[in-house]
Amino acid sequence: MSSLDKKLIYDKMKSLYSFMEYFSPKQEELFIEGMFSRQFTPGSVLMEDGFSCNNIFFILDGSIRISRISEEGREVVLYRIHRGDFCLMTAYSIMTDTDFPAIAQVEEQTEVIALPAKVFKQILQENPQLQSFIFASSLNRLKDVIGVLENITFTGIKQRLAKFLIMLANERSSDKLKITHEQIALEIGSSREVISRTLKNLEEEGAVQLSRGRIQILSLESLKKIILL
Amino acid sequence: MSSLDKKLIYDKMKSLYSFMEYFSPKQEELFIEGMFSRQFTPGSVLMEDGFSCNNIFFILDGSIRISRISEEGREVVLYRIHRGDFCLMTAYSIMTDTDFPAIAQVEEQTEVIALPAKVFKQILQENPQLQSFIFASSLNRLKDVIGVLENITFTGIKQRLAKFLIMLANERSSDKLKITHEQIALEIGSSREVISRTLKNLEEEGAVQLSRGRIQILSLESLKKIILL
Repeated sequence: MSSLDKKLIYDKMKSLYSFMEYFSPKQEELFIEGMFSRQFTPGSVLMEDGFSCNNIFFILDGSIRISRISEEGREVVLYRIHRGDFCLMTAYSIMTDTDFPAIAQVEEQTEVIALPAKVFKQILQENPQLQSFIFASSLNRLKDVIGVLENITFTGIKQRLAKFLIMLANERSSDKLKITHEQIALEIGSSREVISRTLKNLEEEGAVQLSRGRIQILSLESLKKIILL
Repeated sequence: MSSLDKKLIYDKMKSLYSFMEYFSPKQEELFIEGMFSRQFTPGSVLMEDGFSCNNIFFILDGSIRISRISEEGREVVLYRIHRGDFCLMTAYSIMTDTDFPAIAQVEEQTEVIALPAKVFKQILQENPQLQSFIFASSLNRLKDVIGVLENITFTGIKQRLAKFLIMLANERSSDKLKITHEQIALEIGSSREVISRTLKNLEEEGAVQLSRGRIQILSLESLKKIILL
């Protein structure tokens, strides 16, 4: 990366990460000198259980899914990070020198800016705005995980599924959803079998129509009613 | 609280909170001047959904349970804080000016040291050791919540129950456990009905014997086998 490229990216980052406005000239220099860019394609793994990590990642573009995977291979999505976030898990591993057995998987074409841990720590120590940002990030991730936990504990599977389908239809502005039962199970913390059975049940009620790898929503109203049950 | 009392408590805190060793004389003075002590009896609520909070709490003694409660009144325990911890939720509410709808309930006689948010923020800004402590705390709480989530997602109810009974028996060094089905449901994220049914099932298998408000473990071996299923 040329120093001009670096300066351009640095300026782009400044608009995403407001704490960078408070960098001293010295800190800016350290950051620019240490930073490097990495591109990841969908499906690639940025970090996983036991990975050793010497850099902190800032997400410039794309989407990364942070999950935990059980010994039997079941996955539960903890949260996602996007443009303007940073990867708390890598910061955690580095700063506490412990293993954080999570997996960070790239979902869309993703560009991250990596900063060597040493540089990050040095700036962190001197910059209260960066500290606030890190603190806020960790609390937001805590909130995310509590949300997932609540969703799983407090909501029945049928309600969770209905909620998820509505959310997905909104997100994609379509009532024809291309998604496998496996993927849904992963998203809402259940098993493929349970999802298939519950979808079948929704089909019998006339709320959806199932075909291979696709779910068509027939009645948004029915789904909404289920959520209110 | 006399200034002698304050100085004594401050010294006691120093042995619990290592970041206080790095306080400047000015910070020490600010802390001592601002701090005050609060005692809570078991069952009392320290903070709940929508509570307004102007102080940060450090736990000097006792145990506080942090939970979320669903609209239908179901509770899920997120984590517990003890001597040497601080209450992240209050810090969160204060620092982000948002509601964190959790409930903090005192389980044992508890002594906390409260520090006005203003003082806390001022010291936080100047003291990297306090920042590290806060960061580590929030990550540890995140780990706790992920643990609860995993436990709920990855483990079947029977395994969870067996695990919990073994843990409790170890903790209390007794195989006669005084605990209600309601309390167990709360601890492992289930409903009273499901717990009663699963316990009945364990009784039929000869692993436990049930009586009112009490569970006697008959075969630790059987319980351990269930976990390995």
